[in-house]
Amino acid sequence: MAPGESDVFIPGEFAPHRPIFHIGYHNSERNAPPTDIQYGNLLNQGFNFVTTPLTNDHFRERVFRLVQDHLAILKDSGDDGSSNFTTPGADPILPPLTPQDTSVFPSAAVNTYTGYISPWIDPCSPNRIISSISRQVLNLEINYANFCGIRSLILPGPTRDASKDGGIQGLAQYSRAVQEALTIGSRLTFLVHMPMYREPLAGLEVRTLSSVLGATPPREAGKEIDLYTAWDSWNHIRSVCDYDMRLFVALRIPKVMPEMALQNRWFAEPLHYLTIGPESFQFNKPGYPSLSKHHQNMIFTYMRLKNTPWLLLSDLGSDGQGTSEQPDTKSHDQFPSLAEAGDKVVKRSASTNDYLSYVRWLEMQQTPLPALESNTLTSFQDWLQSPLQPLADNLESATYEVFEGDPVKYNQYEAACIEALSEWKELGKPTSKEGVVVIAVAGSGRGPLVTRALTAAEFTGVPVEVWAVEKNPNAYVYLLRQNEAIWGGRVKVVKTDMRAWKGPVLSESPETGPVYGKVDILISELLGSFADNELSPECLDGIQHVMAKPHGISIPSSYTAHLSPIATPKLYADILSRYPTESTAFDTPWVVRLFAIDFVSQRVPGHEQIQQAWEFVHPIPESTLKGIEARRSGGVVGGGGGSMAGAAGANDHNSRFCHLTFVCRTRGVVHGLAGYFESTLYESQLASAKGQKVEISTHPERIDDKSKDMISWFPIFFPLKQPLYFPADSELEVSMWRQTDDTKVWYEWLVEAWMWVGESNRIKVGSSALCTSRKVACLM
Amino acid sequence: MAPGESDVFIPGEFAPHRPIFHIGYHNSERNAPPTDIQYGNLLNQGFNFVTTPLTNDHFRERVFRLVQDHLAILKDSGDDGSSNFTTPGADPILPPLTPQDTSVFPSAAVNTYTGYISPWIDPCSPNRIISSISRQVLNLEINYANFCGIRSLILPGPTRDASKDGGIQGLAQYSRAVQEALTIGSRLTFLVHMPMYREPLAGLEVRTLSSVLGATPPREAGKEIDLYTAWDSWNHIRSVCDYDMRLFVALRIPKVMPEMALQNRWFAEPLHYLTIGPESFQFNKPGYPSLSKHHQNMIFTYMRLKNTPWLLLSDLGSDGQGTSEQPDTKSHDQFPSLAEAGDKVVKRSASTNDYLSYVRWLEMQQTPLPALESNTLTSFQDWLQSPLQPLADNLESATYEVFEGDPVKYNQYEAACIEALSEWKELGKPTSKEGVVVIAVAGSGRGPLVTRALTAAEFTGVPVEVWAVEKNPNAYVYLLRQNEAIWGGRVKVVKTDMRAWKGPVLSESPETGPVYGKVDILISELLGSFADNELSPECLDGIQHVMAKPHGISIPSSYTAHLSPIATPKLYADILSRYPTESTAFDTPWVVRLFAIDFVSQRVPGHEQIQQAWEFVHPIPESTLKGIEARRSGGVVGGGGGSMAGAAGANDHNSRFCHLTFVCRTRGVVHGLAGYFESTLYESQLASAKGQKVEISTHPERIDDKSKDMISWFPIFFPLKQPLYFPADSELEVSMWRQTDDTKVWYEWLVEAWMWVGESNRIKVGSSALCTSRKVACLM
Repeated sequence: MAPGESDVFIPGEFAPHRPIFHIGYHNSERNAPPTDIQYGNLLNQGFNFVTTPLTNDHFRERVFRLVQDHLAILKDSGDDGSSNFTTPGADPILPPLTPQDTSVFPSAAVNTYTGYISPWIDPCSPNRIISSISRQVLNLEINYANFCGIRSLILPGPTRDASKDGGIQGLAQYSRAVQEALTIGSRLTFLVHMPMYREPLAGLEVRTLSSVLGATPPREAGKEIDLYTAWDSWNHIRSVCDYDMRLFVALRIPKVMPEMALQNRWFAEPLHYLTIGPESFQFNKPGYPSLSKHHQNMIFTYMRLKNTPWLLLSDLGSDGQGTSEQPDTKSHDQFPSLAEAGDKVVKRSASTNDYLSYVRWLEMQQTPLPALESNTLTSFQDWLQSPLQPLADNLESATYEVFEGDPVKYNQYEAACIEALSEWKELGKPTSKEGVVVIAVAGSGRGPLVTRALTAAEFTGVPVEVWAVEKNPNAYVYLLRQNEAIWGGRVKVVKTDMRAWKGPVLSESPETGPVYGKVDILISELLGSFADNELSPECLDGIQHVMAKPHGISIPSSYTAHLSPIATPKLYADILSRYPTESTAFDTPWVVRLFAIDFVSQRVPGHEQIQQAWEFVHPIPESTLKGIEARRSGGVVGGGGGSMAGAAGANDHNSRFCHLTFVCRTRGVVHGLAGYFESTLYESQLASAKGQKVEISTHPERIDDKSKDMISWFPIFFPLKQPLYFPADSELEVSMWRQTDDTKVWYEWLVEAWMWVGESNRIKVGSSALCTSRKVACLM
Repeated sequence: MAPGESDVFIPGEFAPHRPIFHIGYHNSERNAPPTDIQYGNLLNQGFNFVTTPLTNDHFRERVFRLVQDHLAILKDSGDDGSSNFTTPGADPILPPLTPQDTSVFPSAAVNTYTGYISPWIDPCSPNRIISSISRQVLNLEINYANFCGIRSLILPGPTRDASKDGGIQGLAQYSRAVQEALTIGSRLTFLVHMPMYREPLAGLEVRTLSSVLGATPPREAGKEIDLYTAWDSWNHIRSVCDYDMRLFVALRIPKVMPEMALQNRWFAEPLHYLTIGPESFQFNKPGYPSLSKHHQNMIFTYMRLKNTPWLLLSDLGSDGQGTSEQPDTKSHDQFPSLAEAGDKVVKRSASTNDYLSYVRWLEMQQTPLPALESNTLTSFQDWLQSPLQPLADNLESATYEVFEGDPVKYNQYEAACIEALSEWKELGKPTSKEGVVVIAVAGSGRGPLVTRALTAAEFTGVPVEVWAVEKNPNAYVYLLRQNEAIWGGRVKVVKTDMRAWKGPVLSESPETGPVYGKVDILISELLGSFADNELSPECLDGIQHVMAKPHGISIPSSYTAHLSPIATPKLYADILSRYPTESTAFDTPWVVRLFAIDFVSQRVPGHEQIQQAWEFVHPIPESTLKGIEARRSGGVVGGGGGSMAGAAGANDHNSRFCHLTFVCRTRGVVHGLAGYFESTLYESQLASAKGQKVEISTHPERIDDKSKDMISWFPIFFPLKQPLYFPADSELEVSMWRQTDDTKVWYEWLVEAWMWVGESNRIKVGSSALCTSRKVACLM
């Protein structure tokens, strides 16, 4: 830590902090909500919430009978209900709920329950009678739950995926039913219960309404599992429901953990519950349950989410050994005492309390959050911020304070200054003022870089003259005070837009006016999340005329922008919910601490996962600088020979284009592009350290190497207007532009999906619209 | 024609009418616009318009030199311009236009010219210098054309398709340049010059800017032609330009006509010009040019469009024998006299006048428009109308008049009545009133069906009692007058909503009040473009209680709705231009005379091109009718056991769902679903004619069989919010719902694209949003 930096952000000031587990109790055999005493016991035991069924066996039996009777009548008329072309016979009508059908009634406790929709309904059924009655039961239960004051409902997931016979139709029906559920329970939260993947021969089959049609075909064993069908179904449901913010996933943890790619996929989804059943546990000799390392790691990872998922322990304990095959043959009048159950310790039949204790123990096994992931930073997860307009607006002191609170960044700047000044000393480079290296900090703000430049000069023993150039009149006042109080009057402070600065004043006389010199080292911190998005190139072009030729240098000397297509359903939902009230929501490159995201592409030979879009180097060649001047003053016929409407093209040399190809192994959906940057602050010219660079980076694969723990920049997110679906073995072709006319800068981006069919045939499967931030362009 | 029908629409009243050809003159070797005298000659000769270049050889040579010089400089610095990561060297700047660069200046004539952008630019080039200069030239020429008063510009099409190396990037650059062109020329019309398909070894290569890089690789011969790459490119361009209504196609007619599927594809696009060059012509012995039958048929078909495409004769005539390989080596100071050229008749070197004469002759060879395609009907092509709300609104007389103006429909109704009454006579069926068949016309309007029923009774000699039931108080007045004036007081007119009608009054006494009888034949004309979309099922359910049991019949007795996915870029553009001002534009099932459309699916075994969605049959079973009553009065817990939020489900028996699979051979894009209907008015029960049906149909494949020339209904169009692209060998999975709560009816539709990869593997490639007309639902 450099001297004089006592007021910057110091990591590690917070006490160790671990995410808190919110644990729920679910018993699929329950026929009624817990009594008040039972509920109290559960809470005392350490549970945070419980589920309740909404109707009971009595109701279910009535519905099964209704469907059976109706199918029998239809059969007589030669209709088995499988045709979509409804004959005009009346489909069965669900009779109203009676007090015998439910044990749920309004009460103080019921408000805190999570309702579980009857798992025996089957809205996916290709049989129209069954799907119709299933929808009616669903609607009735939602309505009744809503009336009773329940706030969250778990919906049993779809019974079919699209790859099965009738699956597309079934899923369409299911998704549509969920959409209607959101309308009926217009203030409720809905969780669709999905497995992480569809396990073959998964036990715990529920006897759904479809069982009245006869034995359901056994699941195909032996066939290779398609790991992504469950995610496919979820993607279908939430797409039909237009990414409703009240729709969540209750994710069933599998017996065997799947590949990381699938775990990452779900990580990005709106997870609300993780449900764990007995099949996921293993047991030690005394019969105590535990989870595998893979399960533990997955839970630890998911718990890093800002909205930590809730854990729902399902059928865990001796009173809930899975669902029996025929739950209706058992009596459930008595809710088993948990205290009783807790006494027995039988191998593979641990008590509820054993499971709960294990999960609470797991809670304590979490690595404490690093200081950087403290509460403050965590709250920035996936939180959309509009980018700054540093040229057009004057920043507030608090904003500067946030920027200055990152020692990593300023340490790197100081290191770059030391490196550069060492060269002046060791190589005897010329200076623009006899015996003194002239340094200017362009856009000094409140002066942190001035401080670092002075420190570097002291460290290297090189005599310097430091100029602080700042356009913000308020920051200017602060700089003057700092100069008096901290810098000992050594700094020359100038209030001007850097592009209008004529350079350091060498001498001044009443006759000739001021004589301007040049700058040897120009230091600036104008980079944005995507490197050039806060107009660093334009600003540095504008001040380049003060740089000494040919030896003057810029810190930073170059910077690059980097891209990767990502799935980020939560951000998409967030942006969609702002639109169209916020008409530019989809046009804005958002600054956001990307967290619940999934990189949809893989690194393969020749294609990185995150790829470089373009680069800027400073200073630019003199000929280019002259060209700018010519365009600005010359003008062309018809108002512009530039690339853009009405522009003379004075800034065309700062336009960029890139075309990048990203390789995707699995199918998925892309919601936009994540953007990062890297910058070489200074590259050493010394023989001893030739090519050694002082760098900063937000590139996820490189930040730890180059500027570990640097928090000054969050990534940038370029959204697509519509999620773009792509099949397995696809390539995403990304075209991106940095566009500019004479007054502003903006970005445009276009994503196309191409799929490999065979070895040599690649075909187009979809495309985004051409997206543009022109409406929210950065003003020069 | 039935008696008493003299005031109905009579086809054939119009004089034969053929589409008029609008013919233009284009010479790609021109270096300047025609002089006033030349222009006058062209107009006198029979041309309607001419093209002009915007700049000349002088300008082109300057630009070529600029690029060459710049590339040479770059080469020295090791940069050949192929990298996207622009080194900060300045790219070349296009100097302003000088009077030596152009011969176009503002004048009265110039306003009428179509400008032709320099065909030597190459915005697709992967070389950033060439693409940058090309964009600058494009922008400069647009700006200058705009200044001079030109209103239409032809843009040379992209030089690369996406399948070529660098093609995706090149096309992205090209499309983006066109988007900017639309911004720069904000009141201009732009035509992208596209070939119908990319012919291998197509001659007439233009020497573009890219030629400065060295010889361009020859087009691959032998390789199988992909017929759809040109359309792909166009689809890319207009998608990036968001279906701008000022963007059109100038379609180059090929030497050899392609398959009909491709011709149909282009038929649906916004064609503005058809350009014909010498390669498309064949020559007879004396050397006169003509077009093949295939060419002629294509032109005849395209000319049926409401906006008939303009024909641009390109390089036709001895003064324009194609473009020479090096146009800059020839001098074009003198515009060749057309009169001169017309004198020469050389084989394969016909004069401009020969070509023009041939095309004018072709104009007269067109089959005159059928009377039904008269000016009036043509103007309805692809014109979006909001569907009627016949239950909620009272129709105006003029609307009735339009409906009544279709003899085909009423002839079929009369035939159905005759058939039904014959049965009463021959089978001795019971009647609800002694010796008299009671007929009610539900929703009589101004009485056309009453007239037909009376005619049928006279024809069959069956005694009838006719009731006219009408809710519209204004139409009621007219009915009373008709009864006096035309029907001789034979008709009993009742003013009431049919659903509230108690039935024909048998007798009435002061003590007992009226005694109501029943109806034997219930006639109605409540069908909409999609059969049930104007609530025919709901209305007929509501009046069914007056029908005699069990022998009472409904005319129509059943009806079916039919669907097909279509490409209709013009309608999509139209709807998009209304949105979001018209917030429900994409939610509305539009009634529209679909014309410039392309059916994207094919008929294959097991899958029709147009498929049935569902059916309604009348009367509905008594048990269903009782069910409705029960639901309406009974009510259920929580406000609804129906399928929909808040509904008791009283109309659930009229909800429908279908899932249909359409097979697409070639890749394409779907913009929505076309809807049609069929109805069986009556199916004979007579032994002699058992199963014989009187039908009406708007199904394109069946209308001619069932109700030829019926014009009462236009099809319906269910739009998608986003065009859905699909690859070759795809299947479109369409889910469609007729949804209903207790007060209204609406539709929902969802289209998913699945592609076959190999024999047994079908994968999802894309999906539409779930679309719904709930916001513009039909009120019951």
